[in-house]
Order: sequence, then C-alpha cells, then structure tokens
Amino acid sequence: MSLANGRTYLAIPGPSVVPDAVLRAMHRASPNIYEGELPDMMPGLVTDLKRVARTDGHVAIYISNGHGAWEAALANTVAVGEKVLVLSTGHFAIGWARIAEARGIEVDLLEFPNGGTFDLERAEAALRADNGHAYKAVMAVHVDTSSSNRNEFAPLRKILDDLGHPALLMADCIAAMGCDRFEMDGWGVDVALTGSQKGLMCPPGLAFLFFNDKAAEGRRRLRHVSTYWDWTQRAAPEAFYQYFSGTAPTHHIYGLRAALDIIHAEGMEAIWQRHETLARAIWAAVEHWGQDGPLRLNIADPAVRSHAVTAMSIGKPNGTRLRRWCADEAGVTLGIGLGMASEDDPKSDGFFRFGHMGHVNVHMILGLLGVVEAGLGALDIPHRAGGASAAAKVISGV
Amino acid sequence: MSLANGRTYLAIPGPSVVPDAVLRAMHRASPNIYEGELPDMMPGLVTDLKRVARTDGHVAIYISNGHGAWEAALANTVAVGEKVLVLSTGHFAIGWARIAEARGIEVDLLEFPNGGTFDLERAEAALRADNGHAYKAVMAVHVDTSSSNRNEFAPLRKILDDLGHPALLMADCIAAMGCDRFEMDGWGVDVALTGSQKGLMCPPGLAFLFFNDKAAEGRRRLRHVSTYWDWTQRAAPEAFYQYFSGTAPTHHIYGLRAALDIIHAEGMEAIWQRHETLARAIWAAVEHWGQDGPLRLNIADPAVRSHAVTAMSIGKPNGTRLRRWCADEAGVTLGIGLGMASEDDPKSDGFFRFGHMGHVNVHMILGLLGVVEAGLGALDIPHRAGGASAAAKVISGV
Amino acid sequence: MSLANGRTYLAIPGPSVVPDAVLRAMHRASPNIYEGELPDMMPGLVTDLKRVARTDGHVAIYISNGHGAWEAALANTVAVGEKVLVLSTGHFAIGWARIAEARGIEVDLLEFPNGGTFDLERAEAALRADNGHAYKAVMAVHVDTSSSNRNEFAPLRKILDDLGHPALLMADCIAAMGCDRFEMDGWGVDVALTGSQKGLMCPPGLAFLFFNDKAAEGRRRLRHVSTYWDWTQRAAPEAFYQYFSGTAPTHHIYGLRAALDIIHAEGMEAIWQRHETLARAIWAAVEHWGQDGPLRLNIADPAVRSHAVTAMSIGKPNGTRLRRWCADEAGVTLGIGLGMASEDDPKSDGFFRFGHMGHVNVHMILGLLGVVEAGLGALDIPHRAGGASAAAKVISGV
Amino acid sequence: MSLANGRTYLAIPGPSVVPDAVLRAMHRASPNIYEGELPDMMPGLVTDLKRVARTDGHVAIYISNGHGAWEAALANTVAVGEKVLVLSTGHFAIGWARIAEARGIEVDLLEFPNGGTFDLERAEAALRADNGHAYKAVMAVHVDTSSSNRNEFAPLRKILDDLGHPALLMADCIAAMGCDRFEMDGWGVDVALTGSQKGLMCPPGLAFLFFNDKAAEGRRRLRHVSTYWDWTQRAAPEAFYQYFSGTAPTHHIYGLRAALDIIHAEGMEAIWQRHETLARAIWAAVEHWGQDGPLRLNIADPAVRSHAVTAMSIGKPNGTRLRRWCADEAGVTLGIGLGMASEDDPKSDGFFRFGHMGHVNVHMILGLLGVVEAGLGALDIPHRAGGASAAAKVISGV
Repeated sequence: MSLANGRTYLAIPGPSVVPDAVLRAMHRASPNIYEGELPDMMPGLVTDLKRVARTDGHVAIYISNGHGAWEAALANTVAVGEKVLVLSTGHFAIGWARIAEARGIEVDLLEFPNGGTFDLERAEAALRADNGHAYKAVMAVHVDTSSSNRNEFAPLRKILDDLGHPALLMADCIAAMGCDRFEMDGWGVDVALTGSQKGLMCPPGLAFLFFNDKAAEGRRRLRHVSTYWDWTQRAAPEAFYQYFSGTAPTHHIYGLRAALDIIHAEGMEAIWQRHETLARAIWAAVEHWGQDGPLRLNIADPAVRSHAVTAMSIGKPNGTRLRRWCADEAGVTLGIGLGMASEDDPKSDGFFRFGHMGHVNVHMILGLLGVVEAGLGALDIPHRAGGASAAAKVISGV
Repeated sequence: MSLANGRTYLAIPGPSVVPDAVLRAMHRASPNIYEGELPDMMPGLVTDLKRVARTDGHVAIYISNGHGAWEAALANTVAVGEKVLVLSTGHFAIGWARIAEARGIEVDLLEFPNGGTFDLERAEAALRADNGHAYKAVMAVHVDTSSSNRNEFAPLRKILDDLGHPALLMADCIAAMGCDRFEMDGWGVDVALTGSQKGLMCPPGLAFLFFNDKAAEGRRRLRHVSTYWDWTQRAAPEAFYQYFSGTAPTHHIYGLRAALDIIHAEGMEAIWQRHETLARAIWAAVEHWGQDGPLRLNIADPAVRSHAVTAMSIGKPNGTRLRRWCADEAGVTLGIGLGMASEDDPKSDGFFRFGHMGHVNVHMILGLLGVVEAGLGALDIPHRAGGASAAAKVISGV
Repeated sequence: MSLANGRTYLAIPGPSVVPDAVLRAMHRASPNIYEGELPDMMPGLVTDLKRVARTDGHVAIYISNGHGAWEAALANTVAVGEKVLVLSTGHFAIGWARIAEARGIEVDLLEFPNGGTFDLERAEAALRADNGHAYKAVMAVHVDTSSSNRNEFAPLRKILDDLGHPALLMADCIAAMGCDRFEMDGWGVDVALTGSQKGLMCPPGLAFLFFNDKAAEGRRRLRHVSTYWDWTQRAAPEAFYQYFSGTAPTHHIYGLRAALDIIHAEGMEAIWQRHETLARAIWAAVEHWGQDGPLRLNIADPAVRSHAVTAMSIGKPNGTRLRRWCADEAGVTLGIGLGMASEDDPKSDGFFRFGHMGHVNVHMILGLLGVVEAGLGALDIPHRAGGASAAAKVISGV
Repeated sequence: MSLANGRTYLAIPGPSVVPDAVLRAMHRASPNIYEGELPDMMPGLVTDLKRVARTDGHVAIYISNGHGAWEAALANTVAVGEKVLVLSTGHFAIGWARIAEARGIEVDLLEFPNGGTFDLERAEAALRADNGHAYKAVMAVHVDTSSSNRNEFAPLRKILDDLGHPALLMADCIAAMGCDRFEMDGWGVDVALTGSQKGLMCPPGLAFLFFNDKAAEGRRRLRHVSTYWDWTQRAAPEAFYQYFSGTAPTHHIYGLRAALDIIHAEGMEAIWQRHETLARAIWAAVEHWGQDGPLRLNIADPAVRSHAVTAMSIGKPNGTRLRRWCADEAGVTLGIGLGMASEDDPKSDGFFRFGHMGHVNVHMILGLLGVVEAGLGALDIPHRAGGASAAAKVISGV
C-alpha cells in the first residue's frame, strides 16, 4: 500500500505549481501569428509584466530559461574583457558569475557566508576601491534558491549613489519575483530578470529582462550584441515577431496571460502578504520540530529569509531519507539540498528545501508540513511533535 | 489578502477529486463510435468494473447519476404494486425508498437511529414476518453519505438464507465503492450499484449496476421494463450502442478507462487500506480537537464508520462558519451537513462533512486537517490544539 | 504510407465535432456543487437552451442520451396502457415507438416511404378517425438521422387544431436542433427533445426536454411518473441538485456553457443559414458525381432534406469500401448506412452518410468532399469527376 | 453569417498544427525535475531526435526558437572576426547571415535568384577562391520558408571535399525537417538545426542543434563560447539540468515525447512520402487554377520545390484579399507572402503561402484547396475552375 496515491504536490523551489487555468489556456490549437488575438495580446502582457516587477521601465521577453536571462542581462550591458562585481550569498550568484566569465567578462566575486546576507561594508569597500569605475555592473541575487536567503538592493543603490559609481545594479529575481516583495524602481535596480516558472506560475520556457532608461542608454556603447539577446527590438518591436526575435512562444503566451490575470486579480501586495504568512507558518513548524532534534532552518535571521523557498539541514542521510519518504508514501516532492555539498556530505544528503512560491495556499502548505511531521515520525528522526499544529496556529492568528 | 489562492481542494463527499490522467483522457476529439478503439475498449472495461465490485456477475452501464441507478435497480427487479423492505441509516436510504414509491412500489421502511448501523434483530423480525414473501427486495445503503456510517451486508444475506426468503439483497454502494471494502459475491449481494464520481474518480455522468444470475433470472418475470433501464441488452450487447441504449458516453468512457487503470495498478486491497489509514488519521484529529470543545464524530463506533466520508457535529452556526472560513481563507471546500436538519437547526448549520474518497493521499488529508485546525483557531471555536499533529502521528505509525 | 496521418475529421451524424473551447471548459477540477459558480450558472443555461429550441416554455435537463430523452418525454405525457400515434420516416421514429411499447403504451405507427416526408392526408385521416381522442400524443422525428429527411411540424399542428384533437405534438429533434431551423413555439410543438452531442456540440451525456404549459398541465393527470424522468422538479428546482435529480453533471455543465456561448455569439439564424449553405455544397458534389455513376442522395427532394446529415446510396459493397478508404487513407470517418439493410444488403454496405452538424465550416466540408472524390477515384467507383470543385462553386456563390 | 464557424485550420508555414496527443501530453502538473519520469525520458528523446535528422552524431536541445538555434550554431563554430560563406535563396538565409554579422562574423553572401536553387558553379568558384580557408563554415538553408524552394546539400559536400576545404557545412532545416527528406550524415552535413514548431509538431519553444564529431572537434579551438549556446554539456550532460543549461522545459519535453512517438510510429520514409504526395496535390490544384488566371507557383521547377511549404503569386492586392476571405469566410488561415516585397508591392499583397508540414493529411489539404477555389470564385479572381478536383485526382492515383 502507498498513501501517496492522490493528487501529488511538487514542493520544490521551481518549477512551481501551474494553476489549472494556465494549463487550460495553453491547451489550444496553434494560433495565427500574423494578426488577431495573439499579437493583440502583447501590449497588455508587457504592461502587466512590468507591474509584477514594479517598474515603469522596459521589458524584453525571451524564449529561454533563467540561464538565458543571465546571458541576456550581460549581453546588453557588459562587453568582453570588461569587469563586474558579483555579490554572492549562494549557489546561483556564483552560477551567474561563471556565465559572465564564459562570456569573457572579468569577475570580482565577493562571497558572504551561507546563511546570511551581504556585508554592506565589504561591498562598499570593493566599490570604493574601484575608483576607475572598471565595474560595469554590480550583480546580485535577490533570493538565492539554494540557501533561501533574501538580499536587499536599496542599500546597494545607496552605496553606488553615495560613491557616484556608474555601475549598473543588476538583480537576479528568478526565485522570488511575484513572491517576495521586489520594487525595481523604488529600490533603484537598473536591470532585473526572472523566469516564467516560479512566481509567474507558468511552465518553464520564458524569461523576462526588465531594464530602465539608464541601462538602455548604456547598451548603445556595445558592439556585437548577439541578436537573440539584444533587448532593443524585443522591448520596442515594430512587428510581432520582433518581441521574440523570430517565432513567438505561442502557447506560453496564452499561459502567461492567464497567469497575469490571476496575479493582478489578487494584487501584488496581497500576494506578497500571502507568501509571507505561509512562510511564517513553515518557519514555526520547522522551529518547533527542531526543538528536540537536528532540523534547522538554513537562515537563522527571519529578516533575511525568503518567503518563497526554505532551505533546511537535518543531518546526513536524513535529508534524503525524508525526501524519499514524502514522495513515496505521501505524495509530496521536496527540493534537494543545492549548493550545500561538503566533503562530509558530497551529495547534500543532510539538506532539503521547500518551495512555496506562486500558486500556494494554506491547504498546500499545511499539507506539506503534516507530511513532513508524519515522515519525521515514520523514520524515527528526532523532533518535537506538534509542528504541523504550530503552523496551523500561525494561520489562525492572521 | 486571501490565503486560499492556490490549488483548491474539494473535500466534499462527491464529486471527488478527478485525477489529471482522467481529465487528460477525456480531453479529445469525438471518436468513431462504429468501430475501432472505443468499441474495442468495452470488454476490458466490463471486466475491470466487476473487479471493483468484486463480482463475477454482470454489469450494466448507464448514462445517469446515482438516482438513475436507483431507478434502474428497481426497474429490473420490482414491478408496480409489489413490495420492498428498506433498511435505513440515513438520508440516502430514504431517498431510494421514495424513488421506489414514485414508481408505484410499496415500501416498508425500517429506520435505525442516525449514528449507528442496522439492528439485525429488527431486520430479521421484519423478514420473518413476511412469510408470504411479499418483499421482492431488501434495499440498503452500504455507506450513507449523509451520516457516514457503514453497514454490513453479509449478516443480511445470512438472515435471508436462514429464513429461506427469496428477496433480492440490493446494495447502494454509491458513496464508497472503491473506498470501503465491498465484496459483492463474497457477501451475497444480488444487486449493487454505484456512480462514476466517487471512488471511481471520474466526473459525474455514469452509473453502474451490478447483478448476479439470480437477479437476472428474476428480471424475466417482469413486463414493461422501460428500455432505458433494462439491464438485459446493456449487460450482454451484440452491438456497441446496446451497451448504452443509444449514443455512447464517448468521453466518459476514456476517462473511466484511465481511472480503472489507476485503480487496478494500485489494487483493491491497497486502495481499501489507504482509505482506512487516512480515515484513521482524520478520526484521530477530530477526536483530539473534541477533547476540549464541541466537535464530535457523528458515528461513535469506529467499527461502523465509513473510510470514505466523515460526518461531524460542532454546534450551530459553527459548522457553516467553519466551512466558509476553509473555502474563503484556505482553499478547501468542506461538505455541508446533509440530512441533519432539526427544528433547532433547520439548515444543518451545526454539521459538516469531509469527503475522503478516491484520489486522496496523505498530503491532501493532512492539509485538510491543518486547515480545519487553523479555522477552529481563527474562529475561536473551542478545541484542543494539536489535532493536525495527532493525525500525522497516525500516519507515522503505519 | 498513409495519407491519413493528420488531424482526423469525424464526419458521422453524431457525436459531432466538439469545439476546442468546449473541451477546454470541461478540463477542470471538480467544482463545488453546493454554491458558487456552478449553481449560479444554471438560470443562464436554461435561458440559452430555450433560445436554441425557440421556446418560451420549460426545459428539463437529463443526464442521459437521446434514448433517455425519449423515455422522459413519454414518462411525463402518456401512461401505461394509453395510446399514441407515431409518424415514421425512418429508423429513429420506429426506435421511439418501440421505447413506447416497452413502457406498455399502445402505438399506432404510420410509416411513410424512406426518401420522403409525411403524407399529411394519411396523418389527418388517422387523427380524424380517432374521434375518441385516444391518442395522447402524436410523435414524430424532425430529422431522421438514418434517412436524412426533414419533416415539418406546423402542418401537423394545423391538423390537430383543425380537428380539435387534444393530443400533444411531440418532436424528436436530436439529429438537427441547432442545425436545421426548428421553431418550437412558432410551429406549435408541445414537447421537443434533443441531446448534447449534435447541434449542441458537446460530448454525449446530456439530453434536453422542452415542454410548454399545455404539456405541463397534462403531466398532472399521471400517477407513478418515475422520479428520474419527472420533469416537474427539474424544470422548476428549488435546489441545485433538483435540476438533475441528484448529482449534477459537473463537467458537462461547463462544456454546455461554452457551447451555448459559441452558439449565441453566432446567432440561430446565422447557424441555420451556415448549415443550409454547407448542405447545398454537399448536394452539389454528390449530384455531380452521380451524373456518371451509382451515387445517389437518399432524399430526392431538396425541400425535405436535412441540412445536418446526408444519406446516400452507392451500391454494395462500395459504401463500405469507400468508408474504409476515407478512414484509412485520408483521415475522415464517414457514417454507416443505418436502417437501410435489405435482404440483398444485410449490412447496409451500399449506403453511407455524412454528418455535417454543429461545429462545421467550409474547410471541413470541402475537405470531406475532396476526400470522397479522391476515394471514388482510388477505388475505381464510377463517378463524374469534379464534384469537389462543384461544391466550391456553391460556396463561391454565397 | 460566416461559414468559418467550425474547427479552423492554420495553413501557415509554421507554427504547424499540433496533434491532440501532443497538447494532451503537455497538459499536466509540473513534474519532478530531480529524478523519475522526466529525467529518465531524455536518452530516448535524444535517440529519437537523431533519427529524425538521420544522424549518428550529437544533438543539443535549446529552449529557444529557430533564431536561437542560428546563434547556437554560430557560437559553437565561428569566432568573432572570422569569416563564413552564406548561400542564399531567400529571406531566411539572409536572416541567418545578419545574425552572424551581429555576432561580429564576416559574411560573404552569395545570393541566387528567388525561385530557384544554388548555382553550384558559383558556389564552387567562391570556395575555390578561398584558398586560404578563411571560411570557417558554409551556411545554407535546406528549405527557405519564404520562397519555398528546396536546396541540396550533397553537392555542396562534394565541392568541399573535392577542394579539400575544411569549412563546416551547416544547414538550417527549420522549415522542413520531418517533412522533406533530409539525410544529415548521408549528405555530409556537419551541423544541422531545426525547431519544435514545424515538422516536429510541437508548440514553438524548443530548438535542436545536430552536429558531428568534426564540428565537435572544431568547437575546442574557440574561447568565450557563451554558456547558454555551448553545445558541449548539453550534448553530453552528467546531470539532467545540463541538457538545458538550467531549468528544463518540462511541459515541452512531454509534448516532444508524444510527437516523436507519432513520428516514429509512422516512419521517416512514410512521412516524407506523405508530404510529397500532398505537395503534388497542391501543385496540381495551383497549376490548374493558373491556366486561366494570374496564380503561379513561386518555384517553377518541381525538382526544387519543398514538400512542406508552397509560395505563390497572384497579383496585388489579391493575395491579401484571398487570405482574408479564407480566414473570415471559410476557417483557413493562409501564410502571408514573406520576403517578396517590392517597390510596387511593399506589403507583399500579391503573394501568399501554404504551410503543409507535419500533422497534415488528405482531408486537411483537400479542404484547404477547396477553400481556395471557393475564395477565388467568391472574389472573382480569374482562374480555371476544377483545381480542387484536380488535386483529388492526384490523391486517387497514389
């Protein structure tokens, strides 16, 4: 017998759960790409995407995943041989840095300990030292999906402004745009990027690059921007195919339209608050269990925890055991520990993550926590019983 | 803000959650009805339906809901002016009795108190008194969806056999076939019926009538069996359209095929055990909450509780308040109290039900219980906190 | 190699092609049946169904196919032992008559030759002879799907009125409601019925019974109307479940809503005109081919041909050969000849039919005709080449 | 009234018609990306993709459209400042050349007249003149979607071999891979690319880059290959995410699996033959109509016509008038004329195209031709009537 035989829940940090309305919108015959409904849909999509990023700037839409958006952000801002500063609190900032290096960009990498956020003094020192303004961009990740920490951008903007440093401030918002509060214009971010498959609740396959006039201006000094990544035409097309540099992602466009309808019917503030509340329920459960056992949240300080993803440690091999039990016995797939490998635990068997991004509600999250509590018990992993009810209590108190 | 904006869970006692594979199978162009895939599918469907009912007998498939199956069962077994005995433990036995009366059948109704099962002595007395064998059928409900009690049929068979009473034993299994153990042949049931929308995990629209040779034999004495309900051709068709007395329910057939594939891949014993385990988790939560408050299971004795549906009382108007909170704030729709109305509570505001039938797993059920615990707290309904975790503990112990 | 490997076209006279929007609407999680979207949808559905039947009367919706609607019409109008007059121009009128007989109703059957319509003088004579008004209903088929003839009801109404005969005028409109013009109130029809799977463009599974006040009044004199067929509550429900005598056909309701939206966006007059034009294109092709070969329309007189279905003869075994070729080599499924069997051709191998009902346009129909012309050629069946182009010319001339 | 209100047919040269089975496969909850069904599917996908391209080489799969594949092909083979030779017979070869130029590649463009294929002598002369082997690649388009001509690659391979020229032979097969015969290994093509949305019958969003060992070897001399385009890891991944340089295109993978199942069930030879036969039917109709009017196939010589797309001229503004009529009155969307603009006809109003690629059968194509014949008549555009039947005759003769 397996108790998993029902509707399964994919609780990984992306791809996230796709709403039925989005899947339904994508289930259709190929549409006309020359005129009519599909091309007519574009201006509204652009407007509604920018409302998610909280910007009055520009957006280029790419058929790609987030790695493609990383390339696109660099292709439009930094030339081969130029220099960038990367602030890292985890796996994905380093991934972006490596993408830059492969493009022939020189990278200065400031690494901060896993479990926290930027040390602003170190960041400021690095920028102050760059008095020749060699850094064309400061690249950082909003929420690092591996560590689940959340970084702030307004302080970075302030440092740049105070120093009069012209580098672009570029934010990878893949993990949590549409989940954790992000204010592109309000925080002074010049370039922000995300993908379709997390807070935007669509299948993977689209990426979005938001940029302001300052970034657009900087683009002009570059030669040899590869056409596919060039944001110029994509963000100001004269013909439908120019939005996508060629054939449009017909079915994803319909899906995205449905997702944006759901998002703006709820409202950005309500969405951010929903994610925060559900995250607090998760933290309450994990901290409760951890009182009598090895389970720990990866990010100690609630102020810098993401509301979209939660990384935890539980000791090798219990992370992997728990993931397997939840999938095989209860219908829930947890995220693997990512970027946590050590000599002692080369496969991150002591870590796991919850994704709680996008189309998530109380039922899904309390179900997830109930399953984990059941799994801890079934596997005899020490924990204080009652975490699921502790989470319910958080919800009661909203 | 609403915390309900995710994938919602319909926890009512039917229609139940339809697996994605079933919906996917139904999303197709209209098929050829003369030959090919669809007609070829029928013999396997018949076999696999009978495996669910645990019978080597016959099955007739109807385009109808459960009320249609009630009509069909009577149309093939009891003539206008004849007599039946109905044993009732709730709303639906009485519904079936009324359908009989509308057909011009004389009904003797034995009612047993809500919250229990049959008093076999009273049943035996009634049958013994019928020494002229006026009763053509003894009609009873396996699981009454309103009260959530479960009745046994083997003892009724024994009484009939001991008395040498020729009445057919007819079981309404709509609520729980494919959820609670039911052994048509093993328990000596002559006619059993169910619908597509509960344990069979399909949308409503099909009903199934199982009957054995004795019932088929009895059919022959009846004149004027209306063609649509007549099981004769449906159960032994020479042409495809005869399975359905006319146009086939094309899309439902594909859905049913997918559902039966899921069911028999799991196995009947495993399915019954899954439902039992999940039911025990539910009971543990409800009993835990009830230790410090008004919440009570409707069926006191676990031995006669269904594993597919659970009726509870909580006092007026808290049943309705809780249902609304769960739907509006947490994404879960609970079942209304049915057949519980009283002078004091004309709209059953003090009652509610959980459906947990068919495509259900640990995540869905522990999510449901987490939501209810959160709702009890949010609404300040007295309860002992910890029910969600108590349920998780039941799962841990499996 | 097969040239059939593309999107196939089911050109049978029902089930018809289901629009993608209808299938998409049906692909959804089970909805709440107590309140909200689904129950709220009902009043609009009722209104829009009646607009299709062109009546201000009542409608009862059944989970059933057309045979069920036949039963329902009789159950509400004619008691066991009473008498009806059936006017037959084909297979389905006889089918309905047999359903009546099985219910214990006495049937007088007036058969008219295949290929034509009613002989009104014979109909009048029969009614005039019934000066005791034994006939409780006059039953006839609007379009007989087997012969593809179309019958008129206004003249029957006139005869009844002129004779002062109180029999109900009952119309089976399964084949062509929403395709061929039908004016229930305008033509004085008292009871009309249809199914979901033809002009209403949904999968099979629902049937609709329209009736006027006179019929409703007559209902009251009947005892023992079986609950499932009783139209009283269904047409004037106080609770949602009463629309369907039990569990609602949740997914079909969503599909029907989508179909009615498509229908009324186009408009009944435009729909009837579309069907007429496409039918004329079909006739032009068939008559063209028939100039040099055996192919013949079953209905000689265009004035009594349906616009929704076309029956043809071509000689044994070429009907069957052509059907197989179209399916195997070209992706089109034609309808079998129905009700055409003779001693010489027991399996109707010399006949076939086109369905052209509901969701059909020029592309589908001219593709069908191109395929048939290709098949006639491939199989060396004598015909005058050019029928496909002759049909295109009809369309050009609209 | 509109005669278009049925299932519409998108007869543009891509995106092509997506089979229902592909759409159905894509309608699913987000899957686990760490292990299980999805990752396990990859080796089979790779094998089956290579069977379509007829290569034993390698394949890299990109989340992108065809323009992305153009970038990827160049990124792995030609460095900034290096030189390529482009042979052009239409719009898309020039498009690829411009992509190369934007990357900083020096392009020599050999243009051949619209309506024909390569002049091999000119091609040879250009390569012979490059005795310093500056050309790193010879780039050409297999089928140019704009002109609908088809070019041969084996003769180019022979020229390169005869000259001992080491340039890679690179083929854009976007328009017709899986439609027109293409033998990557047999014809000596080193790099071939295509997209998901034409012969592969999926929605746009994936592109495929096939390459042989020689090309792989050449890749190693390049520095700064941008990670997203780098084929190295994609074609020989150690982890699932490496197939896609990041998040996998989860839903497209399921769709592609379904499409490849359909393709290989039919077989490449049968697919090519089907496309050829249907193309011949199209040509017969167009040539028939053109006998008494202005309609002309763009490619005079059948030997160099594609079997997947057909470009035609009909004179300004009749191309546009005809397209509108077919869409508005008959349910068929034709392709616009592309790359045909002239001073006299700046919007290509005198041109149009048929797409007949992938999931196409006799019904779809003969329906298309019937519609066009009806449109020619309705719009009083001179033509010889009978083209639709002429096409049917071609099918008869197969």
